[in-house]
Amino acid sequence: MITAMKEINASIITIGDELLIGQTIDTNSAFIATELNKIGIWVKRRVAIGDVKEEILDALQAESKDCQVIIITGGLGPTADDITKPTLAEYFKAKMIVDEGVLQNVKDIFTRFNRPFTERNAKQAEVPDACTVLPNKRGTAPGMWFEKEGVIYVSLPGVPHEMAGLIEDSVIPKLKEKLQLAVVIHRTLLTAGIGESFLADAIAPDFKTLPAHIKLAYLPAFGMVRLRLTVRSDNAAEAEQEVDRQFEQLTGLVKQWMVADKDIKIEEVIGSILKEKSKFMASAESCTGGYIAHLITSAPGASSSFKGSVVCYANEAKENILGVQHDTIVTHGAVSEETIREMISGVISVMNVDYAVATSGIMGPNGGTPEKPVGTVWIAVGDKDKTVAKKHFFRYDRKRNIELTAHTALNMLRLFILEAEGV
Amino acid sequence: MITAMKEINASIITIGDELLIGQTIDTNSAFIATELNKIGIWVKRRVAIGDVKEEILDALQAESKDCQVIIITGGLGPTADDITKPTLAEYFKAKMIVDEGVLQNVKDIFTRFNRPFTERNAKQAEVPDACTVLPNKRGTAPGMWFEKEGVIYVSLPGVPHEMAGLIEDSVIPKLKEKLQLAVVIHRTLLTAGIGESFLADAIAPDFKTLPAHIKLAYLPAFGMVRLRLTVRSDNAAEAEQEVDRQFEQLTGLVKQWMVADKDIKIEEVIGSILKEKSKFMASAESCTGGYIAHLITSAPGASSSFKGSVVCYANEAKENILGVQHDTIVTHGAVSEETIREMISGVISVMNVDYAVATSGIMGPNGGTPEKPVGTVWIAVGDKDKTVAKKHFFRYDRKRNIELTAHTALNMLRLFILEAEGV
Repeated sequence: MITAMKEINASIITIGDELLIGQTIDTNSAFIATELNKIGIWVKRRVAIGDVKEEILDALQAESKDCQVIIITGGLGPTADDITKPTLAEYFKAKMIVDEGVLQNVKDIFTRFNRPFTERNAKQAEVPDACTVLPNKRGTAPGMWFEKEGVIYVSLPGVPHEMAGLIEDSVIPKLKEKLQLAVVIHRTLLTAGIGESFLADAIAPDFKTLPAHIKLAYLPAFGMVRLRLTVRSDNAAEAEQEVDRQFEQLTGLVKQWMVADKDIKIEEVIGSILKEKSKFMASAESCTGGYIAHLITSAPGASSSFKGSVVCYANEAKENILGVQHDTIVTHGAVSEETIREMISGVISVMNVDYAVATSGIMGPNGGTPEKPVGTVWIAVGDKDKTVAKKHFFRYDRKRNIELTAHTALNMLRLFILEAEGV
Repeated sequence: MITAMKEINASIITIGDELLIGQTIDTNSAFIATELNKIGIWVKRRVAIGDVKEEILDALQAESKDCQVIIITGGLGPTADDITKPTLAEYFKAKMIVDEGVLQNVKDIFTRFNRPFTERNAKQAEVPDACTVLPNKRGTAPGMWFEKEGVIYVSLPGVPHEMAGLIEDSVIPKLKEKLQLAVVIHRTLLTAGIGESFLADAIAPDFKTLPAHIKLAYLPAFGMVRLRLTVRSDNAAEAEQEVDRQFEQLTGLVKQWMVADKDIKIEEVIGSILKEKSKFMASAESCTGGYIAHLITSAPGASSSFKGSVVCYANEAKENILGVQHDTIVTHGAVSEETIREMISGVISVMNVDYAVATSGIMGPNGGTPEKPVGTVWIAVGDKDKTVAKKHFFRYDRKRNIELTAHTALNMLRLFILEAEGV
């Protein structure tokens, strides 16, 4: 019998007007939540507030009522209005002191980048004397760890890679050391080609009522849906067994749409099949404008299966580089089955690859016609012997049309490769 | 004399476990904050909570204390645990009814996509009878508008393009109609090639203490910094005058780093210069893997100045398509001044363009050597007569190295074009 331990709740407080005026998207909170989740700490709430003393004090007070861990990011940069640190000092009844280690780190950074050390930067070395300093190897603003009445407070800089470094290097190890944490196991699978609600109907009979220590999350993105099972327990072996059993049942129910039985991206799935078979691919992109190549090359090691892409935005480039016939474009248009098929054979030849994917469409907001409205896209995949082409309609905005085209194209390519390789 | 009107404060409540487990990044809040800001509503706080009745009730209660507008997103999808709507009904002391207009919309959508209409989807037509329905043209879940004790509450679906459509079509017009709003004017400029703290030092003497109705925000992203001036007033003409005066002073102080005196992207700046001069560009991308092309083609109308990109990830592609000499790569390596210069002349010729940008580097985490560590990047820009090449070091993770390389390359290209065209 698995019994879930008492949950440790966390809250993430993000400080900074830039999040409230909307010009910065908060990626830090998602990162922090993921890392806390991995070690069994549940994020109960996230709050974003401005650089205002009263707001900060109110938030610290409110969040500490039902959370045992509070992570604060932002408000520490050299142009911040110097509000966060004095406010923390007030909250913890501490006084500001210069930390010699931090001061040395700031000076070292300025020497390394050969930049003048200013008064403004020296202020970065001041911390409330109630904190334990968490050294920041990637920047000038230090992390700060406080404890008060059974609650842990951690203040981190808002610069994403500095925050992430501190979370990994200091915060997670220290939390594990200080807290009695439950075992939390996640298991994720990736589906394509089916909407969230149809997927829910397909698995509902078996996954309608789960015990409290098991959670099933639907995570839709870019025309694909991730399913994530989470089991929480105080017994690692039992939790493993339980999650294995549930996950096996789940994969059985969604088999026909399943791209991977782990939390990876579709481009990584394609990359690993090709690498195993020592095969290579390339893309010929008109309407996706290099986005497919960007997705593929965002993963480390892409060079072991990807040779490149011809982003042939102009028709001239389709002709000159890929050898698409001028007549084909004149007679059928750039967005046509005939053109997309010639793009495939052209890119296979010029890139010297085994497999290729090609896109040509009208992404909007302009360029549509009555016969070919915005959202009309031809996608083709193929090898030296065979090309499969399909027309799609994506009726969203430009950004989303590009994303959906790229992901649909990658799924078509995956299915084509699986069949061709007999996997 | 400008006097700032009483501020109208808003809070954004985001509902959904997916934000708390960290697998979804909250882009909705930034969009909503931007749109509210434009009409003079200040977002005081943003709160993310789970699909839990008590949490939702607590948040509605807490946020209504000092905010006059509360925007709620998420918790309405077909797989949500049916918590948000009944909780709203409870909060507003309402009962659930079927809205015929919403039901018809849901049925129409299912007919259009030729999909079976399920019980689960019929539930989307139920709303608390205390609300005014905001029709959703882009999906099945309706928006809902409530008023209670002088506070406006708006509940919207979490799917980004549905939420955005409802904000633009219904929420903003209705808020303007219902509220006496102050005039808010923003003026933004974009800088490149200078860090946030140095920029702050450069403009501090003149912009240290601004009156309360004027704000200056620093918005750093990808090695560039945006500066945004905001003036709030109840007199449109006076506010215009004030913001003009302040903005002119600001642009004077940062002139040497200024890319644009409005809120546009650097790739759009390049696009508009080229379009005006009827010139074309292309890129040859090794380490950026198509990201430069993706940035450029994300803007509508890119085809009027961009012909395409050769993403030559494999050396073979550098040779076969761009005509880089095999000997050059063998002798100097792919990441070298010699190779990058040949990439420029190759892509100018094969794409038949006036200007080109090229990148070749080691983005990490693997592939570094003692002579060429991870983060070593050669960037070149040029035209038919001249090529400028420069070596850079970016010492971050793969994603950030790609972003910094792309933006640095675009700024080099912009400066090259400005000089060549004598602008």
